[in-house]
Amino acid sequence: MQVSPSEDKIPVVGSTSNSHGYGEGLYFSDGRRKVDYVLVFHQRRHSSLRSPASASVSQDRLSVVSNGNFPPSAASDVAAGRGGGIPGRDSACVGEVFMELGFAGGNESLEPADHEMRLIRQEFEANLQEAGLEIERDREIKSHGPSFTRLHAPWPVLCREAEFLKIRVPTKTSYELKEESSFGSSMSTMWRKLNRPFQPKVPHQDHGRTKFLSHCFSREKLHLYNITSKETFFDNTTRGRIVYEILRRTVCARTCQTIGISTLIAKGVYDAAFPLHDGDYRVMGNVEERNDRQLLHEEWARYSAFYKYQPIDLIRKYFGEKIGLYFAWLGVYTQLLIPASIVGIIVFGYGVATVDTNIPSLEMCDAHLNFTMCPLCDGACDFWHLSTACGTARASHLFDNPATVFFAIFMSLWAVLFLEHWKRRQVSLSFNWGLTGTEEDEEHPRPKYETILLQKRQRKQKNKKKKKKSEPDKQEDGTVTGKDRWRQKLLSAMAAGIPTPIDKLTWKDRLPGYFINVSSILFMFGLTFSAVFSVIIYRITISALMAMSPDPAIKSNVRVTVSATAVIINLVVILILDEIYGTVAMWLTELEIPKTETNFEERLILKAFLLKFMNAYAPIFYVAFFKGRFAGRPGNYTYVFNNYRMEECAPGGCLIELCIQLSIIMLGKQLIQNNVFEIGIPKLKKLVRALKDKGSAEKEKEEEKPPQQWNLDYALVAFEGLTPEYMEMIIQFGFVSLFVASFPLAPLFALLNNVIEIRLDAKKFVTELRRPVAIRAKDIGIWYNILSGMGKFSVIINAFVISFTSDFIPRLVYQYMYSPNGTMHGFIDHTLSYFNVSNFKPGTAPNSLEDKDITFCRYKDYREPPWSPDAYQFSKQYWCVLAARLAFVILFQNLVMFLSLVVAWVIPDVPKNIVEQLKREKKLLVDVFLREEKEKFQLIQSLFAKDNALQPGSNVLQQVQGLPTPGRSSTLPLGQTQALVGDGGGAPRARCRAASFSQFTRKTPTSPMKENENSKHTAV
Amino acid sequence: MQVSPSEDKIPVVGSTSNSHGYGEGLYFSDGRRKVDYVLVFHQRRHSSLRSPASASVSQDRLSVVSNGNFPPSAASDVAAGRGGGIPGRDSACVGEVFMELGFAGGNESLEPADHEMRLIRQEFEANLQEAGLEIERDREIKSHGPSFTRLHAPWPVLCREAEFLKIRVPTKTSYELKEESSFGSSMSTMWRKLNRPFQPKVPHQDHGRTKFLSHCFSREKLHLYNITSKETFFDNTTRGRIVYEILRRTVCARTCQTIGISTLIAKGVYDAAFPLHDGDYRVMGNVEERNDRQLLHEEWARYSAFYKYQPIDLIRKYFGEKIGLYFAWLGVYTQLLIPASIVGIIVFGYGVATVDTNIPSLEMCDAHLNFTMCPLCDGACDFWHLSTACGTARASHLFDNPATVFFAIFMSLWAVLFLEHWKRRQVSLSFNWGLTGTEEDEEHPRPKYETILLQKRQRKQKNKKKKKKSEPDKQEDGTVTGKDRWRQKLLSAMAAGIPTPIDKLTWKDRLPGYFINVSSILFMFGLTFSAVFSVIIYRITISALMAMSPDPAIKSNVRVTVSATAVIINLVVILILDEIYGTVAMWLTELEIPKTETNFEERLILKAFLLKFMNAYAPIFYVAFFKGRFAGRPGNYTYVFNNYRMEECAPGGCLIELCIQLSIIMLGKQLIQNNVFEIGIPKLKKLVRALKDKGSAEKEKEEEKPPQQWNLDYALVAFEGLTPEYMEMIIQFGFVSLFVASFPLAPLFALLNNVIEIRLDAKKFVTELRRPVAIRAKDIGIWYNILSGMGKFSVIINAFVISFTSDFIPRLVYQYMYSPNGTMHGFIDHTLSYFNVSNFKPGTAPNSLEDKDITFCRYKDYREPPWSPDAYQFSKQYWCVLAARLAFVILFQNLVMFLSLVVAWVIPDVPKNIVEQLKREKKLLVDVFLREEKEKFQLIQSLFAKDNALQPGSNVLQQVQGLPTPGRSSTLPLGQTQALVGDGGGAPRARCRAASFSQFTRKTPTSPMKENENSKHTAV
Repeated sequence: MQVSPSEDKIPVVGSTSNSHGYGEGLYFSDGRRKVDYVLVFHQRRHSSLRSPASASVSQDRLSVVSNGNFPPSAASDVAAGRGGGIPGRDSACVGEVFMELGFAGGNESLEPADHEMRLIRQEFEANLQEAGLEIERDREIKSHGPSFTRLHAPWPVLCREAEFLKIRVPTKTSYELKEESSFGSSMSTMWRKLNRPFQPKVPHQDHGRTKFLSHCFSREKLHLYNITSKETFFDNTTRGRIVYEILRRTVCARTCQTIGISTLIAKGVYDAAFPLHDGDYRVMGNVEERNDRQLLHEEWARYSAFYKYQPIDLIRKYFGEKIGLYFAWLGVYTQLLIPASIVGIIVFGYGVATVDTNIPSLEMCDAHLNFTMCPLCDGACDFWHLSTACGTARASHLFDNPATVFFAIFMSLWAVLFLEHWKRRQVSLSFNWGLTGTEEDEEHPRPKYETILLQKRQRKQKNKKKKKKSEPDKQEDGTVTGKDRWRQKLLSAMAAGIPTPIDKLTWKDRLPGYFINVSSILFMFGLTFSAVFSVIIYRITISALMAMSPDPAIKSNVRVTVSATAVIINLVVILILDEIYGTVAMWLTELEIPKTETNFEERLILKAFLLKFMNAYAPIFYVAFFKGRFAGRPGNYTYVFNNYRMEECAPGGCLIELCIQLSIIMLGKQLIQNNVFEIGIPKLKKLVRALKDKGSAEKEKEEEKPPQQWNLDYALVAFEGLTPEYMEMIIQFGFVSLFVASFPLAPLFALLNNVIEIRLDAKKFVTELRRPVAIRAKDIGIWYNILSGMGKFSVIINAFVISFTSDFIPRLVYQYMYSPNGTMHGFIDHTLSYFNVSNFKPGTAPNSLEDKDITFCRYKDYREPPWSPDAYQFSKQYWCVLAARLAFVILFQNLVMFLSLVVAWVIPDVPKNIVEQLKREKKLLVDVFLREEKEKFQLIQSLFAKDNALQPGSNVLQQVQGLPTPGRSSTLPLGQTQALVGDGGGAPRARCRAASFSQFTRKTPTSPMKENENSKHTAV
Repeated sequence: MQVSPSEDKIPVVGSTSNSHGYGEGLYFSDGRRKVDYVLVFHQRRHSSLRSPASASVSQDRLSVVSNGNFPPSAASDVAAGRGGGIPGRDSACVGEVFMELGFAGGNESLEPADHEMRLIRQEFEANLQEAGLEIERDREIKSHGPSFTRLHAPWPVLCREAEFLKIRVPTKTSYELKEESSFGSSMSTMWRKLNRPFQPKVPHQDHGRTKFLSHCFSREKLHLYNITSKETFFDNTTRGRIVYEILRRTVCARTCQTIGISTLIAKGVYDAAFPLHDGDYRVMGNVEERNDRQLLHEEWARYSAFYKYQPIDLIRKYFGEKIGLYFAWLGVYTQLLIPASIVGIIVFGYGVATVDTNIPSLEMCDAHLNFTMCPLCDGACDFWHLSTACGTARASHLFDNPATVFFAIFMSLWAVLFLEHWKRRQVSLSFNWGLTGTEEDEEHPRPKYETILLQKRQRKQKNKKKKKKSEPDKQEDGTVTGKDRWRQKLLSAMAAGIPTPIDKLTWKDRLPGYFINVSSILFMFGLTFSAVFSVIIYRITISALMAMSPDPAIKSNVRVTVSATAVIINLVVILILDEIYGTVAMWLTELEIPKTETNFEERLILKAFLLKFMNAYAPIFYVAFFKGRFAGRPGNYTYVFNNYRMEECAPGGCLIELCIQLSIIMLGKQLIQNNVFEIGIPKLKKLVRALKDKGSAEKEKEEEKPPQQWNLDYALVAFEGLTPEYMEMIIQFGFVSLFVASFPLAPLFALLNNVIEIRLDAKKFVTELRRPVAIRAKDIGIWYNILSGMGKFSVIINAFVISFTSDFIPRLVYQYMYSPNGTMHGFIDHTLSYFNVSNFKPGTAPNSLEDKDITFCRYKDYREPPWSPDAYQFSKQYWCVLAARLAFVILFQNLVMFLSLVVAWVIPDVPKNIVEQLKREKKLLVDVFLREEKEKFQLIQSLFAKDNALQPGSNVLQQVQGLPTPGRSSTLPLGQTQALVGDGGGAPRARCRAASFSQFTRKTPTSPMKENENSKHTAV
């Protein structure tokens, strides 16, 4: 902290030769100091297109919009305009200052705002320099356009912050990974050989046999680390993170009373802040020396690499742990979709193979059986023969067969396995990335929270003053100064982390927000349901109208036309509402005023997930569980709007309709979202920007020098969080797991989509986004809970789909209870009830009734025949089948839940080899420190020998304090070692080892680190 | 480690005045050094009663026997005799040594064994002294009887080990607990006042407003801690733990090649090892100064204190965390049983209040309705009138009413709430006890595991040798030396913790064990089931025989007599099998050769739980779900042994039978286990021992001096783990949760039992057991999982009990589907089917048939009447009711599971105030260290100022190594502080605070610890 600005230019020791020739824009003008971070602000002489407040508020927000980017101005208008009963209070603090000074903060008087912002920037950057960062600005001060402030973190700053952040770095000590037994090792060699073509050609992807011990960075242990060059010891990602950490906590007390860069961006003082990419992603000349971005682009971010593993370690190295975890998760998910797809294809194949031997569908197609069915609509429709529905019956069998039950159980267990596998992968990743033992970083409150808190304090003080003094003339002035004082207090309290008497918002402050939240969510649920209902109405009315049409061509295509159009309408509605709900969820979460960014993210995700889930699945749920169940029976149909009969399922059963609905929505959603939102819109945006730039470029033609890396990066889109990417995948996971009983090919389509999705996302991250700040994350957070919740929910849903939507249970019941000979023959007859055509209500009988000699028509239901005493009541078979269905649900649910528990219990959460490695590392680390401390104390001993001669009294003092006398000193290192291992935590084995070590080696001093003696001596 | 034995008697600084007058037996003969641990061995001149091997093997084992103690010799015989295919290999190593030396290790030649053991003891105790412990032995060497070795840990040893063990100790720094708001504080004061009579009168029970910051002990930070006296800084419990830690890891390489006291006890070298109690538990004279044991005895371990809270902190202080957690858990469970009992009583009260208005039971009792029921047995029994079963019908209503459904839901949620509440309590206890951040201690392998491993190695080597050389004459000799070499290697490897090539037992070694395990468990399941089945057979045959008896008095009491005797037989069988299963589970777990003690405990618990659960609940499951369901119908009964009809439920329904079964087993088990096993047997044991002692005392009359504390403690029973205590409670939890729908008073009886149980256990721990070694534990381990599993299971069970065992669903179905007027009138008639008496099979009709004019009799079932086309088939009502029952199960299960999830999600696992306190402590700690380091570095600075004058070159070295120059030194403390906080992990808030702290306070050096400067100076 005492690195004063004057000390900035410390001589850079070590080699700088690794500054490759092509990295022009990556260094300060001296060509040696790396640009670690860039701050950008816009000079706004000519009133710019974006209003500062709206442009900036949306900057620091997480977008949940699944793929596209909602228009930022609209969102912020919403947020600012209807802000929880306190409208317009979240404007930039600069604006507030202006109000106080008497300026009108409108669009016209931007000049003073600019001036104010310049002051803020000046103070902020001065504070950055005080924190040890080095700053370079553009030489010429441009009158407009972006201005760049480039930051460089020198070695001492890096060291200090690395220690604070407990960044793990490799030490010189390495250890051999455990040898497998001969059989295992030959197997693994073969596996590696087979796998080679699927491995990306990236250095260090294969870890090999030795592993370097890593340890939290500490400036006192520099000799332990493998520091070849101070320039490259911390890679660019870590440097960026370190600088971001400083930016995040640097205060700006005098001019704007706030903390951190994100608030400043939110307030419009800066436009953007980002670390630089490693250079251009296109390989220019020599292919040998590629930077990480080029490597990623070559080996990962291209479609032709679709069959390869992802270079997860490199991704993590370049983008940080959080993004690395996303891609690792996506990879695991995609990989596990392969077996699921294969089984799905087999199950589908079984359906295809057995369609010609399946008795129920053969019976349905058999024209000789000649079932005369009751008409499908009133009046206009005629009686029809069941054999005409042969096509749907055969199609239905493809998905509705016993193999589907097996597949549903399989997929439920698959979901559990996937989660367990991911848990293990997560642990081993976080071990390999050195995250074990690190804790969650604590966060500052969000800017919005601070603002609201400030307002609360002000209100409170005002009220107090009102009560105390009753001079109304002094109040106005008092409030302003009081406000300032409060601001100062709040700020210092925030900076110090001291809890002040009223240091948080209570539920009372959030009540209006919660109220709006609940009501809006209810409203949107209503919206979703009414959308579904409208499509139903559309289907009912159109099919009724078309059936009445005299044209036979129209009549014959009723079902196809109506279904197709209805599903497409559904799809469009879903896509539109999806975007709307993303925006609304964001707005609602703002109203809740969450304290921290993590808090905000979690609430947003939960809300957005709830809304999007409802939206995507409501029509599917309708088809699965409600369609055709309220249609009534001939002679007693249910009508909507007094005229239109409720729709029934196709003759082949509801499952085929569910299957069609599911596949179209799933495929349509994926295709449209991938193509339009993820490829189309960014391309369009780029085009628009390019056109705009062309316009302004004409004016700026005078500067002809090639664009620097920061110019290039600024032209890219800002990174807006992983929420949309995760959300898309989670909704897809729902398609794969929830209704998988009805559509065994869903995993296959998901797999195909994901293979593309990975490369699409990779391309986006490598070429189209600014480099995101690396964020440490040990797990995927709330997404895991959502996944696991969906897995559990899917068990119940699948149980109901199999037992209620499919014909599986009725067939079983028929075969074992009613079939005369134990075969399925006669099943179709069994499922059809009789209806006496004379019982048609007046006006509903088909017009052609008189022409024909028909007394009974059939319909699909289990009801008593007309000749029974209680005609048209549910028959005994109905109740029997219902009981069987319910029993199946109970059996299926509990069986699968039990199996899932067993699977989760059998698979340990932490892989065995990781446990072993952890133990070994702990032990090794203790050893290293032990050795080191031993030598240190031998040195001290000799020092004391000198000292004691000078000060004979000091020994007594030591004894009283329990401090070591030279004679006993060998007991001390252990304690210190324990303290230094820190996050490791006392492993008694290691401890014991240490104890015995000191017992056994007391007499044999080893000293492999003699070269450090002198320096250590002076250090201690 | 260099504390040589000659340095033992360091002058004890500080006050020793706190050695109260009454603690005679607690100190060495010098009256100053505390006895921290006692090792006991028996001189065995006259061949003692217990054979050394068997007595010792059972010492270090965890007993699962629920309450009583199984005879140790039997258990170890089983273990030794049938030891997994390697019989008799777990004998003491001494024995092995003997075999090698050519001695026969029989009972006759005890002399040499004694000699050998003396050698082992000598080496072990010498090693203890080398580790720094001080030892006192009895002056006179007795020829027989127990000999005591007393251990004392001096201050330096305590310090060293406290550092290793990361024991948290209070620092001088304290902080105010957060003030509640005015309303809250007045409420809490009132609450405290109301609570006062329930609080035990124990110092520091109420924490007050300030809390001392605690921190892991470190010898370098002695000045931070609140050390008033070195004698009392570590309390007796901690001292005991520290000594135990040393005992546990001290090797005994030369004579016995083993590690740790537990192995030595297992091998019979020592008889016992235990820390001393704090003195007598009876208060002698002055009541003012009571030791902790007396306090516990007065305020906790007596029945008259049953209404008071437990002094958990004192329990923990005296017995350690693990036992503290048990009592805390028991307390929470008992406390939460109070609301459950109250609701249960209300539900029962509802049943009592409505019994006179309940239409079904009124109809049953109404003699006018005159239902003629089919006879209950073939031939001998007559037709009977339903109104004669009025009593059971009314009793049935007490438990079978709609309130029960509510109660079942309530209890399921109660179970979730209990678990959540306990989780929170656990977290706050582990915070208050300074366990946050500590990790599980790693353990040494169990003695048994080591033995088997050794044998494996030997076999392997033998095989190798056989292959290499073919000289059979050299082999014998070679094996012995090879064995010794292997032993040495194994031992050093174990000591060092280095993984050797073959360092563990694989599944192959355990295969026979697993095989025996699975088959035994299956066998015992069979045993349980056959026991249940035998009781059924007993009931069927006896009731048939009694029905045939001509005596009307016998006839009328059939049901009562048979039921009562059957349940008592059940109870006895359960109690006997319970004891057997405990022993068998132990034996089976030994066969599995688990590596560590924790491992052993977990497997043992799982197995014992499985067996005991099956045992206790099998008869109850039978009554709930199977009884009466396979009885058949009149004219087509199911027969066992061709003669006896399967039993039916009582006319009032199965629920009342379930209720009786449940209550008798629950109450009987608790009463008998509490009275006989927990009070009776220990008393009996004491009596036996007293008688035996009398016999031997006559010979030893010469020593007349009063018994020392170690004599008194040795006379007590050894502590054998908490497993039996937990197991008893868990089985009880099953009674409370699993079938609660049938017996709402279960929580009340459990509550009454537990109120006694707490004091009973307390008495046992305080007065009857040797003081256990304090074991650190953060949670109750696998018990939590078992509890949570039972909670989940109980949801399903209750759903089935309500829907299938009770008449709830049939009543609902009748009321809403069949009742002509929507009331329950006619329900009884509806549930009874008709049977045409002419359809009786020949010989089964009642003998009195000819005398009466009866054509139809009724029976309880839903079947078609005789006049229907498919007579006696299940009727439509049957299927309808079945469907309703199944639907209810699905609804209930999913609803309750969902509610449970919501409850668990809403209640945070860590209480809010703990989170806040944790944050504050972290921050305070950083502050303290920061301040301290600051001063330290100011000192160093001045030191360097001197040094630099002498050695001008040293500064350069520092810069290269990144070490602090005096000018920059203020940045360093942070890093070190972070490392020292250690378990805390980098909280950015604290970090940030620290950063700003150093920014703001750079210019204002504070120095409240000036008094330590000199000593620190010399220390550094």
